[in-house]
Amino acid sequence: MPCTGGNRHLKTVTVGLLGCGTVGEGLLNLLAEERDEIAARAGVEIRVTKALVRRKDAPRKAPTKGIEFTTRLERVIDDPQIDVVVELIGGTDVALKGVEGALRRGKHVVTANKAIISQYGDRLLKLAAQHRCGLAYEGAVAASIPILQSLDHGLAGEKFDLVAGILNGTTNVILTRMGSEGAEFADALAYAQEAGFAEADPTLDISGQDTAHKLVILVHKAFGVRVPLRALPVQGIDDVTPEDIEHARQFGYGFKLLGIARVTDLGLDVRVHPMLLPIAHPLASVSEEFNAIYLHGRGIGPMIFYGRGAGSRPTARAVLGDLVKVASDDGALVPRLSMRAETAIKLAPAGRTTLMYYFRVTFTDQPHVLATVTNILDECRVEVHRIHAMGRQQGTIVMLTHPAVERNMQRAISRMNRLRYMTEPAKLFPMLEY
Amino acid sequence: MPCTGGNRHLKTVTVGLLGCGTVGEGLLNLLAEERDEIAARAGVEIRVTKALVRRKDAPRKAPTKGIEFTTRLERVIDDPQIDVVVELIGGTDVALKGVEGALRRGKHVVTANKAIISQYGDRLLKLAAQHRCGLAYEGAVAASIPILQSLDHGLAGEKFDLVAGILNGTTNVILTRMGSEGAEFADALAYAQEAGFAEADPTLDISGQDTAHKLVILVHKAFGVRVPLRALPVQGIDDVTPEDIEHARQFGYGFKLLGIARVTDLGLDVRVHPMLLPIAHPLASVSEEFNAIYLHGRGIGPMIFYGRGAGSRPTARAVLGDLVKVASDDGALVPRLSMRAETAIKLAPAGRTTLMYYFRVTFTDQPHVLATVTNILDECRVEVHRIHAMGRQQGTIVMLTHPAVERNMQRAISRMNRLRYMTEPAKLFPMLEY
Repeated sequence: MPCTGGNRHLKTVTVGLLGCGTVGEGLLNLLAEERDEIAARAGVEIRVTKALVRRKDAPRKAPTKGIEFTTRLERVIDDPQIDVVVELIGGTDVALKGVEGALRRGKHVVTANKAIISQYGDRLLKLAAQHRCGLAYEGAVAASIPILQSLDHGLAGEKFDLVAGILNGTTNVILTRMGSEGAEFADALAYAQEAGFAEADPTLDISGQDTAHKLVILVHKAFGVRVPLRALPVQGIDDVTPEDIEHARQFGYGFKLLGIARVTDLGLDVRVHPMLLPIAHPLASVSEEFNAIYLHGRGIGPMIFYGRGAGSRPTARAVLGDLVKVASDDGALVPRLSMRAETAIKLAPAGRTTLMYYFRVTFTDQPHVLATVTNILDECRVEVHRIHAMGRQQGTIVMLTHPAVERNMQRAISRMNRLRYMTEPAKLFPMLEY
Repeated sequence: MPCTGGNRHLKTVTVGLLGCGTVGEGLLNLLAEERDEIAARAGVEIRVTKALVRRKDAPRKAPTKGIEFTTRLERVIDDPQIDVVVELIGGTDVALKGVEGALRRGKHVVTANKAIISQYGDRLLKLAAQHRCGLAYEGAVAASIPILQSLDHGLAGEKFDLVAGILNGTTNVILTRMGSEGAEFADALAYAQEAGFAEADPTLDISGQDTAHKLVILVHKAFGVRVPLRALPVQGIDDVTPEDIEHARQFGYGFKLLGIARVTDLGLDVRVHPMLLPIAHPLASVSEEFNAIYLHGRGIGPMIFYGRGAGSRPTARAVLGDLVKVASDDGALVPRLSMRAETAIKLAPAGRTTLMYYFRVTFTDQPHVLATVTNILDECRVEVHRIHAMGRQQGTIVMLTHPAVERNMQRAISRMNRLRYMTEPAKLFPMLEY
């Protein structure tokens, strides 16, 4: 193996942009500002020549000299001069068509699109490998936090017991607001929308689906397992009330929407829930719009990455990192499909793993409720750890359980919900105990 | 730029090891355990054929089949079969000779040696570039935390305002112990030694020099500036007392040994001190043997990396990451000397930047001490922010200042120390206010 590389000549790499919204503008700005640095550092000149947009004449907050704006995808992906396609449209419609088309035409692809990578990642990685093209998507998970490249390189090979992430800024803003102000979910959401942290239609965030998308990508990198999105238990945050946050606090726990993947005796357990975690846990103090990823490796122990998970500049930074890499070394990001495949573990069967739970039942004044509830738990083999009974008049019992099999816990909750004096469905959230 | 790369054939890469202590053994174990994975992921087979050791017959806690142990450096670096030299001796004597010798002979080098990189980094990087060899040293800073590769790739180009790190586990164990138990420095040190967190001779750690080594490497990656070690103000932790930790706590601050680099109007200010930082600051909660690096980027905002900064497995993981990279893509780690050079900022002149300070003076019962001290501060243009005067009998005054020019603050302290009723030299520590 002779030493090679070093002072290569400046190479021009031509880029076609799909989408030119805030992240696209952020990228164009970074490319302009750091042109000389990129040349010095990576030996490349990156030129954006075309951009697919909805409206050609929309005003842009970025330098656009030399860029042909077009509304036709083919103008970009059919252009033989274009080496790399950067997809920043989002969603699974035009974006998917664009990414597939680009790879089929032998172009490298950089994208920040969690939806297509989480749902069509296998297909796209195969396509990229087949055409010997790079496919990179650091910006799809936690924006500028370099978690994917770290899992690919510095942490490659490490066996993880747990990966847990706060992967969605919108829901973290809402939960932070509910926790600090005692705000109801709807009010906290309105606040997040006003402050620009939540979209007009926040369904993807609130429902936990956005977190699920990112988790699927993380799990693939960390465990070599591709989890089908539909196989993932996903609970949104619209279920959480200020009361639950307050009860959790009294027990010494915080509330976060977490995407977790943990190695259990039954296999890998992957899920998204609003979860309770000990106040002293490093993830508990991650507030507002920040993201954080906690990993526990068997050799390296605990590790945390923390930073902004969204925004024009942070996401553009991640995209630029991938772009410079693929531009300067066009073999570097070609997927190796066998990655971690040798040691990939199986997914745990649904409902069979154990978790510790928080649950809250609400009922009209009635004798023997506590006895009835504990009886049901007994019969379903759920062991109670701590109880906070408000008193008959207030009609609320909160319990923390010992580790319980998920389907047993759910059976117990179903039975409680059928009791005629329950005034609303029980609240049930798992706990993270690491 | 045609697409290349992809499914390369399995390539055998031959490695010579310099040093086979705990990190070397950790590396040999990882190589054995992950052999198939590395082949699948990176397309390489890594074979260690020789190892330089002090005693050939020492027992090893790792598979050593096929490895020739030798006590002569030349047996390793003169071997034309060896492609990569991994240096794990530490120090600047044989290690430097080995690394230079290997690069001159056209071999890639991976090292975890902060001493040679911080002191001879420029020379070694030039040598590597000249011979078109890779030189990688992720393990030299914060072990398995992938901070250097993140600065080289995902975060490359980002303009940072501040980099602050807890980079030494030993001193963090000691400060944690002093904070939680009120232990004196000497007792906390003895505890750290018993628990295996401190060496028999802990001078490098205690004095802040180990932190300074790592900071110099970090600053080079983050700002493109090579700070001469001797130019760096470095204050050790042997100055810190449980009283200071307790006073800081009462003001709402924690104590950490930090290496910081911050952009000021006068240039880049780089220094190592035991510093006060607000209790709510993310670095304040990093305890025991953990390391953490806090960065503030103009585009990406705050970012934190947290994990174990030492130990056989964590360090070996970082070394393996570099080794696999250099083995699978031998051009990838060849240094580009112009990296960030275009935007490199100047170092701030010594003593001229401003910091907020904590200081404590101790004196025998005496009237007018507070007036005298505040007079001196006035004359030295140091403005007081908060005062905690214990009362004349106790003979202690603690103050926090507004931002003050360093040399003004030092002049004030010198004058106070000359007052005949001062019973010991004043304690002076800067504060991190981010």
